[in-house]
Amino acid sequence: MQDVNIVLVNTSHPGNIGAAARAMKNMGLSSLSLVAPEQFPHKEATVRASGADDLLAHAALHDDLPAALAECDWVFGASARTRNLTVPVCDAREAAVQIASATHRKVAIVFGRENSGLTNEELSLCHHHIHIPTVENFSSLNLAQAVQVVAYELRMTQQQKIAQKTDPEEAVANGEQLQGFYTHLFETMTQVNFLDPNHPKLLMRRMQRLFNRAEVSETEINILRGFLSAINRQG
Amino acid sequence: MQDVNIVLVNTSHPGNIGAAARAMKNMGLSSLSLVAPEQFPHKEATVRASGADDLLAHAALHDDLPAALAECDWVFGASARTRNLTVPVCDAREAAVQIASATHRKVAIVFGRENSGLTNEELSLCHHHIHIPTVENFSSLNLAQAVQVVAYELRMTQQQKIAQKTDPEEAVANGEQLQGFYTHLFETMTQVNFLDPNHPKLLMRRMQRLFNRAEVSETEINILRGFLSAINRQG
Repeated sequence: MQDVNIVLVNTSHPGNIGAAARAMKNMGLSSLSLVAPEQFPHKEATVRASGADDLLAHAALHDDLPAALAECDWVFGASARTRNLTVPVCDAREAAVQIASATHRKVAIVFGRENSGLTNEELSLCHHHIHIPTVENFSSLNLAQAVQVVAYELRMTQQQKIAQKTDPEEAVANGEQLQGFYTHLFETMTQVNFLDPNHPKLLMRRMQRLFNRAEVSETEINILRGFLSAINRQG
Repeated sequence: MQDVNIVLVNTSHPGNIGAAARAMKNMGLSSLSLVAPEQFPHKEATVRASGADDLLAHAALHDDLPAALAECDWVFGASARTRNLTVPVCDAREAAVQIASATHRKVAIVFGRENSGLTNEELSLCHHHIHIPTVENFSSLNLAQAVQVVAYELRMTQQQKIAQKTDPEEAVANGEQLQGFYTHLFETMTQVNFLDPNHPKLLMRRMQRLFNRAEVSETEINILRGFLSAINRQG
């Protein structure tokens, strides 16, 4: 997992720091920075970390946000407010996709105070704002919950990336493999009298559209063709 | 927003009930059921609800899980463990997609105890298990965080559905239609000796993932099931 730095600014409740650390560790993140926390270390942080004590022990403490961001070259600010209209806003999923494709960059995601979020000055240090969709009239997520959603999206995106890229089994089927499957499907549909081989066009085109849309993997093609072969043997 | 019933079973910490209520309200959910909570009502629940007191005030209290599920016809169980191998497992995003397409069904999502989750008996009342991806060696999410992730996915999917609705293309199959197709596929794969009904899990899950990803339309489901019926007639 890409090591994204989670930065909590001026947190009031130590329990939120602990809960955020736990959420990070659940999702494979480990780099926590605290900017002027009101109470830290604190028993309540340790209790709520519930086994993520290592993240608390290694948390970097800073006096202000610029100091915490010194080594980061791409900064996302999580904020319910979108006052600073000059900075692009994305949702947590879009942010995760962007971050996953920038492995060479040192990324920080900044979360503001429980009650007042980030100041305009702090927001101006962020290159993007992250917005978590909520209902309009009850839009303020608990701090640790916001960290949870963002960390979860990072992990989901990372997993999809791994599934798409590095797993050789999960390579998307190429044109030849797809064509072989479509031919096999055509023959089998004909064998069981589902398809009239004299008028195959619309039905086969619909099936092709379905499987093309799904971006079927090689493994899935193999399973589907195994199923077709089993049907063939019944004939 | 579809009113999905969130059911918390035998919760130990009242703070988690409050935090779960807040997470639900943030994401537009309002229907909370509590099965034998250890302490409720409780000051800590109200504090952590942070404005979602209305959900706590209207929470339905039940003695056991069957009572809480009496009016629900589609039940998802959130569990880190996947011991009950006869029930299909999906991740939170897949669950949200299925739920969003089943607007006519009364859906419940059940969350177990903080330390021990759901019992096998409780899990057996669930039609699906929801799994939230985590790192392997630190996989236990805080209860309210798990509720947050699931509620967030429900909202994200709902929003995408609203965004897609104006699309004049054909209707996407709903959860019931998908389920009917999966059952039919399972039976047919068994009939042609492609699938061992005693070990169906991985294969069926892969097929579900493929067709969920494709967002199969009603018409496509009808074609696929027509093909399956043609195979059945050969048997």
